[in-house]
Amino acid sequence: MSNVIRGNAVIGQSGGPTAVINQSLVGVIQGIADCDAIENLLGARHGVRGIVEEDFLHLKKLDAGLLERIAVTPAAALGSTRDKPDADYCTRIFEVFEKHNIRYFFYIGGNDSADTARIVNELAAQSNYELRVFHIPKTIDNDLRVTDHCPGYGSAGRFVASAIMGDDRDNAALPGVKIDVIMGRHAGWLTAASHLARQDDSDGPHLIYVPEAPVSQDKFVNEVAEVYGKLGRCLVAVSEGIEDEDGKAWGEKLAEDVERDSHGNVQLSGSGALGDYLANLVKLKVAQKLGVKKMRVRADTFGYLQRSFAGYASPVDQAEARLAGTKAVEYAMAGNVDGSVAFKRIGEGKDYAVECFRAELKDVARETKDLPIEFINTAGNGITEAFRRYAAPLVGELPVQGKLF
Amino acid sequence: MSNVIRGNAVIGQSGGPTAVINQSLVGVIQGIADCDAIENLLGARHGVRGIVEEDFLHLKKLDAGLLERIAVTPAAALGSTRDKPDADYCTRIFEVFEKHNIRYFFYIGGNDSADTARIVNELAAQSNYELRVFHIPKTIDNDLRVTDHCPGYGSAGRFVASAIMGDDRDNAALPGVKIDVIMGRHAGWLTAASHLARQDDSDGPHLIYVPEAPVSQDKFVNEVAEVYGKLGRCLVAVSEGIEDEDGKAWGEKLAEDVERDSHGNVQLSGSGALGDYLANLVKLKVAQKLGVKKMRVRADTFGYLQRSFAGYASPVDQAEARLAGTKAVEYAMAGNVDGSVAFKRIGEGKDYAVECFRAELKDVARETKDLPIEFINTAGNGITEAFRRYAAPLVGELPVQGKLF
Repeated sequence: MSNVIRGNAVIGQSGGPTAVINQSLVGVIQGIADCDAIENLLGARHGVRGIVEEDFLHLKKLDAGLLERIAVTPAAALGSTRDKPDADYCTRIFEVFEKHNIRYFFYIGGNDSADTARIVNELAAQSNYELRVFHIPKTIDNDLRVTDHCPGYGSAGRFVASAIMGDDRDNAALPGVKIDVIMGRHAGWLTAASHLARQDDSDGPHLIYVPEAPVSQDKFVNEVAEVYGKLGRCLVAVSEGIEDEDGKAWGEKLAEDVERDSHGNVQLSGSGALGDYLANLVKLKVAQKLGVKKMRVRADTFGYLQRSFAGYASPVDQAEARLAGTKAVEYAMAGNVDGSVAFKRIGEGKDYAVECFRAELKDVARETKDLPIEFINTAGNGITEAFRRYAAPLVGELPVQGKLF
Repeated sequence: MSNVIRGNAVIGQSGGPTAVINQSLVGVIQGIADCDAIENLLGARHGVRGIVEEDFLHLKKLDAGLLERIAVTPAAALGSTRDKPDADYCTRIFEVFEKHNIRYFFYIGGNDSADTARIVNELAAQSNYELRVFHIPKTIDNDLRVTDHCPGYGSAGRFVASAIMGDDRDNAALPGVKIDVIMGRHAGWLTAASHLARQDDSDGPHLIYVPEAPVSQDKFVNEVAEVYGKLGRCLVAVSEGIEDEDGKAWGEKLAEDVERDSHGNVQLSGSGALGDYLANLVKLKVAQKLGVKKMRVRADTFGYLQRSFAGYASPVDQAEARLAGTKAVEYAMAGNVDGSVAFKRIGEGKDYAVECFRAELKDVARETKDLPIEFINTAGNGITEAFRRYAAPLVGELPVQGKLF
């Protein structure tokens, strides 16, 4: 083990919280607890900001019971940040590392965090400063490259599928058009998870719109009208990032319209805007098209509950997020390597299992991964069964519903 | 058992769905399965509408496995309705009862449903037609009189408390002002359940506003500013029905404002409007008051998820809703009585238990029950520990959170 460097370690959490990001944190803390080479494990409060401000907590020895409580707590126990470090910021991070003899850097986050890790790592290499850098993936958006899927996605998908499952029964009990707006500004992975709520053909969501399949207002109106005409109700799952056929996000267009219309008193910048807009569109155009006088139309925007709801995480996701943390430590201690922890799927269906491997930071940084075309139906308004096979093991067992008609 | 009348029974579900309304339905179906006096149990599709349209399902003998799946399925398996029958409508209901030799009527719903049950019962009495009428309470609003609490409330409260618990950690991770709008147009019971998320003094929600404690915009702005100034963040739980000091709901005022401002392109009638409005108020006035240039302000409107989320019901609520159904059958078979099933609490804390009793329909019909003053703090912006003792057993065990700071 000639490669083992002695020194201190830093860990930080970045970007939007998830239900299992603290599992990865606890995985790292547990992995490092018995590493003699690492004297102190410093937890940076609020990610990179905590590093440049030298705002650290000591995490090397923590009570096992506390760690397990932290592991099941959503969001980011160290605090998170939206800071995206530029070159100067990264230089400052590296200076703090030198000052505190930091030789291990673990950063839990998305593709931006992987990029920060990559840049800091390059600075260290340029200075011949021995540093092991590991990125630990997390994002409810599931849009990181290389890895089969991302910790955080399974739990968010579980929340979305369960919410849609109940909401579909609600819509069947009191029929009308219901629109649910789901997180995902650029990729439709989380919105696609709504498909898991379908246990038979008449179940909603009857229409699913993701950013990867642009939809015009006419197409949207026509398709909602068609479903409503057939079933007397329609449940629609819409990604917050859905795009018009000109490639522009509906939400952005909406924001422009509102800016033109407002007198300063009412702004539509809050999170309910897209859902309310779509509901009004249905009220005006679908009802008119079908000649329905009183159409019950409602919209919900699932919001932060998708990423932070307490007590309903996917057990598979929890275990994998923990594993990603412990694997990062294992890789960092094993040799002079850096990278991002990634999952490879080694079994399907009931035999679902993953193994971890090390990805290069540069391959995970910056770019993201869209929902592939084989997961979207040809009409561009639904999700395929191939997606179900991909996602079902990640969200864990869902409630089985019973119906009288 | 000379009082036992032979004939058929009808059951219906009414009003807003809950996570456990089907438990009560299954309780009735199971209770009646072995009643020889009841030949057919007819399930009315979409409540009273199914009765007047004679749209019935036969429920006397159903597969036990299907029943258990229905029991854990949210919303209303028979379908629900918003119809509020007037005298003519009730007369039509009674005519259908005579036609089908209906001698037992079970109606699961809120105070309006109790009133429907009461009127139909009076019509039967006037005609010397033997009819047993039982109302089975359900409402996430928890606002029925006589009973200690209502089936449906515990599960909705469990959802709200868990959502707020996670959202508070989210807000601590990425600090700012977060506003969560919770269901309850007239009573603050469900919004009060957000208080259960607080496991220590620094936990949110830091401010809780219910309709029973009117709040002016100035008071709201000042109190958010005070919390933010002290903690650097603020989580606010707001009932959708909060009222200004003149006794008018904010939501209603907002709707008027919007109507005046709009040019027909943007309507604010969707469900995100109040949350977005409050977020903008904070962005404008709280940020200005504190001299904060960039204040992170977000709002979520919890929406239908509160009443219909699948897979996260309160086990206590599930058991009690089932019990209410079986008790209704027991009361109806025992003698010439009518009424509404009610709960009496016979133990507190770890010894929590309830027993059922029969309430008079007229005492449950129409009027509702506000959150009592002893559950609201003196500042009118929070909930008391007396409420926690009341509500904690109903929502069941909540996740225990862990923190690093």
